[in-house]
Amino acid sequence: MKLSELITPAALIDVARMQNNINRMQQQTDRLGVAFRPHVKTSKCVDVTQAQVQAGATGITVSTLKEAEQFFEAGIRDILYAVGIAANKLPQAAALQTRGCDLKILTDSVASAQAIVDFARVRGIVFKVFIEIDTDDHRSGIKPNAASLLDVAKVLSDGGMVIQGVMTHAGSSYDLNTPEALVKMAEQERFGCVHAAERLRAAGFSCPVVSVGSTPTALAAQNLEGVTEVRAGVYVFFDLVMQNVGVCQLEDIALSVLTTVIGHQEEKGWAIVDAGWMAMSRDRGTQKQTTDYGYGQVCDLAGDALKGYVISGANQEHGIISRTGTPDMDIVKRFPVGTALRILPNHACATGAQFPEYQALDAQGKIQTWTRFYGW
Amino acid sequence: MKLSELITPAALIDVARMQNNINRMQQQTDRLGVAFRPHVKTSKCVDVTQAQVQAGATGITVSTLKEAEQFFEAGIRDILYAVGIAANKLPQAAALQTRGCDLKILTDSVASAQAIVDFARVRGIVFKVFIEIDTDDHRSGIKPNAASLLDVAKVLSDGGMVIQGVMTHAGSSYDLNTPEALVKMAEQERFGCVHAAERLRAAGFSCPVVSVGSTPTALAAQNLEGVTEVRAGVYVFFDLVMQNVGVCQLEDIALSVLTTVIGHQEEKGWAIVDAGWMAMSRDRGTQKQTTDYGYGQVCDLAGDALKGYVISGANQEHGIISRTGTPDMDIVKRFPVGTALRILPNHACATGAQFPEYQALDAQGKIQTWTRFYGW
Repeated sequence: MKLSELITPAALIDVARMQNNINRMQQQTDRLGVAFRPHVKTSKCVDVTQAQVQAGATGITVSTLKEAEQFFEAGIRDILYAVGIAANKLPQAAALQTRGCDLKILTDSVASAQAIVDFARVRGIVFKVFIEIDTDDHRSGIKPNAASLLDVAKVLSDGGMVIQGVMTHAGSSYDLNTPEALVKMAEQERFGCVHAAERLRAAGFSCPVVSVGSTPTALAAQNLEGVTEVRAGVYVFFDLVMQNVGVCQLEDIALSVLTTVIGHQEEKGWAIVDAGWMAMSRDRGTQKQTTDYGYGQVCDLAGDALKGYVISGANQEHGIISRTGTPDMDIVKRFPVGTALRILPNHACATGAQFPEYQALDAQGKIQTWTRFYGW
Repeated sequence: MKLSELITPAALIDVARMQNNINRMQQQTDRLGVAFRPHVKTSKCVDVTQAQVQAGATGITVSTLKEAEQFFEAGIRDILYAVGIAANKLPQAAALQTRGCDLKILTDSVASAQAIVDFARVRGIVFKVFIEIDTDDHRSGIKPNAASLLDVAKVLSDGGMVIQGVMTHAGSSYDLNTPEALVKMAEQERFGCVHAAERLRAAGFSCPVVSVGSTPTALAAQNLEGVTEVRAGVYVFFDLVMQNVGVCQLEDIALSVLTTVIGHQEEKGWAIVDAGWMAMSRDRGTQKQTTDYGYGQVCDLAGDALKGYVISGANQEHGIISRTGTPDMDIVKRFPVGTALRILPNHACATGAQFPEYQALDAQGKIQTWTRFYGW
């Protein structure tokens, strides 16, 4: 199978780039002296995750119990489900644990901690529970200094659950774009989470694990004193949002969408391709960043960026390629009908999710199909 | 199975609303005296499509050859693949035809028409081909008056292909929001496509089918003289974008996402739910419309809209519910942890695509699981 024989659109993984990204993050966390628990929501692919584990990852992070089930079946036991658990998911979590999965679940409120305890006690189950800490004011979690931190710990402890530790995700690091700001956010994330752990310990609760991370803060962190593990997801592929944040180059982006030119609007300088938003996703994450790549950066078939050419508009199965600035009046000659191109995505997690499988292209040009799953 | 027993997030179809939507469109096209060929890219679901066929649809429109294959296997023969075909997809199209599918394909350029002819002639295949017409300057197609219309027809005709007809999609109708503008756009779409057909016929080419449509223009059209068939897709579910366009009410929207409250940020007036962008999609189609619904309109479990409450922010598996205008300081009491809610989507095609299956809820409260497929 050659690239030119693939049905388009197709999700391509450049395996050499992916392996470089995996090695870079593992070396960074090794250097910082912490365990690394990759977030596999980015790929939802056993082949990708096995490469992360082989490089040294200790356990994984998941965003759905479907992921936990799939990766447990693939042989991975140590799994953190890093979304506050709803009571309706506790039977699924308990079933995984009964089958031998070393599952950790998450809470950030007395109400949800109580729901966990109520479910577990009558069934004689002990869950390992992380308490979510909000270190950057962007989404879920308890503030490091909030009184409710100890209330939640008390409910879990009194209810016989294991307090596994504290975890935080400084997702607002995605809004930054200078090394200085990223270093500062990494320290804020570390400090807040360690502080929460210290409060728990001072109050007599156990708190063995202190888990932090996002791709930008994980790569920017200079010292992780008090932290025991780091989590990151999108680094495995990287994407245009991460390039704008400043933690990778275009040449590091390992995921692209293979597409074919199907037509033109010559007088507008448009080439139409068969990668619309169903392939690229509707993610417009670069819209408010330094460089807006539309729905993606156009590359040639070898994967080299054609600077200035982006997917400027997208319908379900149609993408519009145009040049930023002045329209390209030679677009028909530049990209004739049938031309194969590759498009770098704004957000690898969102683009990958549109495909049932990846086409993994190795350095020798050999292509393997790697299955990807979805749903809940 | 009850609603409260479903794992969240889940994609719910209100079957009674869906059936009303199907009946409304079928009655409209019956009244206008044209055939109706629904675009099944919206649902990608055999159960939904069967309801459309039972109501009177004559054939279907698809956006991928995967859809053509799946629906052909489900017993539907008359299929229009309504995206300009790339040469690399011709073997797949030919295989479908060989198996007995009455497949029609699409072109809008001499280059792609020539590729169709080159592929077909050496294999002794005759494709039925539509020529795409651009009646609203929004994407693909040949302008009704362009010289290349006759050039494309000549290539197809000389090459022994069947010119099945002309088709157009006035997708810019999505940008309108008054009945007057929609009526005008429907007439523009009709006029341009009929004019293209007349030019072909005057030049001696056959052009039996004149196919037009988008959900807004199909519902707004007052007279379709010269048109033989209408296509529309999203009407089957409707969505918030269509509500803003003015062709449905909130109470007509048949697709929603069932979600559970997993936490709060009380001081911000936020409830956090387990429907993030992975469930809702990243579609922000209402952003530039009269009412911006964020990532979706919040409803109670019965499906009644809770006015002013929207998904104001979304991460992969987290949605943030807040009140537009002043924050709701009673959010924790209003939506306690564990509360089940339903979210109406901006764009039904994009939201449906995030789910492997629909939960179809009938008027008696019975739930059936309907499979949905994806990929290419």
